[in-house]
Amino acid sequence: MNPEEKLAELGLKLPPAPKPAGVYKPLIITGNLAYVSGHGPLRTDGTLMTGQVGTDIDLEGGRAAARQVGLTILATLKEQLGSLNRVQRVIKLLGMVYATSDFLEHPQVINGCSELFVDVFGPDKGVGTRSAVGMGSLPGKISVEIEGTFEIRS
Amino acid sequence: MNPEEKLAELGLKLPPAPKPAGVYKPLIITGNLAYVSGHGPLRTDGTLMTGQVGTDIDLEGGRAAARQVGLTILATLKEQLGSLNRVQRVIKLLGMVYATSDFLEHPQVINGCSELFVDVFGPDKGVGTRSAVGMGSLPGKISVEIEGTFEIRS
Amino acid sequence: MNPEEKLAELGLKLPPAPKPAGVYKPLIITGNLAYVSGHGPLRTDGTLMTGQVGTDIDLEGGRAAARQVGLTILATLKEQLGSLNRVQRVIKLLGMVYATSDFLEHPQVINGCSELFVDVFGPDKGVGTRSAVGMGSLPGKISVEIEGTFEIRS
Repeated sequence: MNPEEKLAELGLKLPPAPKPAGVYKPLIITGNLAYVSGHGPLRTDGTLMTGQVGTDIDLEGGRAAARQVGLTILATLKEQLGSLNRVQRVIKLLGMVYATSDFLEHPQVINGCSELFVDVFGPDKGVGTRSAVGMGSLPGKISVEIEGTFEIRS
Repeated sequence: MNPEEKLAELGLKLPPAPKPAGVYKPLIITGNLAYVSGHGPLRTDGTLMTGQVGTDIDLEGGRAAARQVGLTILATLKEQLGSLNRVQRVIKLLGMVYATSDFLEHPQVINGCSELFVDVFGPDKGVGTRSAVGMGSLPGKISVEIEGTFEIRS
Repeated sequence: MNPEEKLAELGLKLPPAPKPAGVYKPLIITGNLAYVSGHGPLRTDGTLMTGQVGTDIDLEGGRAAARQVGLTILATLKEQLGSLNRVQRVIKLLGMVYATSDFLEHPQVINGCSELFVDVFGPDKGVGTRSAVGMGSLPGKISVEIEGTFEIRS
């Protein structure tokens, strides 16, 4: 199955592709790489998942936010590329968690996004390189922000 | 008008291209991409704009710092590439704000840099992908640090 | 001398190449670039160097952690590429320090990694672009995390 068929089979509901919150583009293609701007956890109703992991929300809440960021990135990829089938593979994710100073489990949080990409793009092409780190603050107190680089078919 | 003509028309005064503050190069070209190291807000007198956004300085102070980072990046691009006219377009910026834990408006801060790039490179080529996030600390307490990737002409 | 000969001459002992701590790959090659995931300071005994720079450890402790991250990245490069001699040059490092809010010397910390790369890859090819910044938190309270991009020979 290709990514679009996978998306349908899993019954995943994507949020609307977000409008830029500043002076930037959601996605830019150069060569065979698509660079994707930092995305937040946009719900299908247009609201954002907010709160610091470790105080306002717990690990599971953080994982859910990271998964929602993944769905939001899929919405942008689909809108900008025309089809998720143009995604050849995940190259790189920078997973940024709005967390307390003593939070320990950033990889487990960002897995919420990475596991979604495995479901949609497969266990090889869906897995890229990654950093999962803790930010002092994020725009509008969103719980997770993720930017990515994807290899695409022309 | 090309970027060099735009720079002159706007009467923008660039700071000196900064010397590396550690073991790194300001800019490296591979293929048609120029990678630019993290830059701080260097004033034309050689001092840096410092202070945490949300305590020491406010949103407008942060925006001014981000704009000054943009001018500093332009100084590096001009020195390393010979001319700003070799910049084909902005691909990606990582905008890092030294902010309080509850700061909300990172995109508005980093717009200070992005709007400068629109002025110099134009409303399409001057706008790339972007993340705008909050750091726990930055070198020498600079208010903003931005790294970038640019597509260039050979 | 090539990098493998340099490594032997310096008597550097690499830790084991780390297993991914989440859903990601240690390294991915696209074109002539190798993207390397965020790495922590893994000791040869398999433990990690932890603690916040500015409270738990000082600048020298941070530098030592950054150097250990560099050794860990070398372990991954060697395992994934077969030989360090396939590394053409360092393109980019993102050096992330787990530091207090008022820490000032991130570049000096990350130099611990960069100086190691100079020793192994040489004073030109071992020096890339870089950002050195302070994170609010890092996985398992590691002191330093660094991700990188390297140009490689095919």
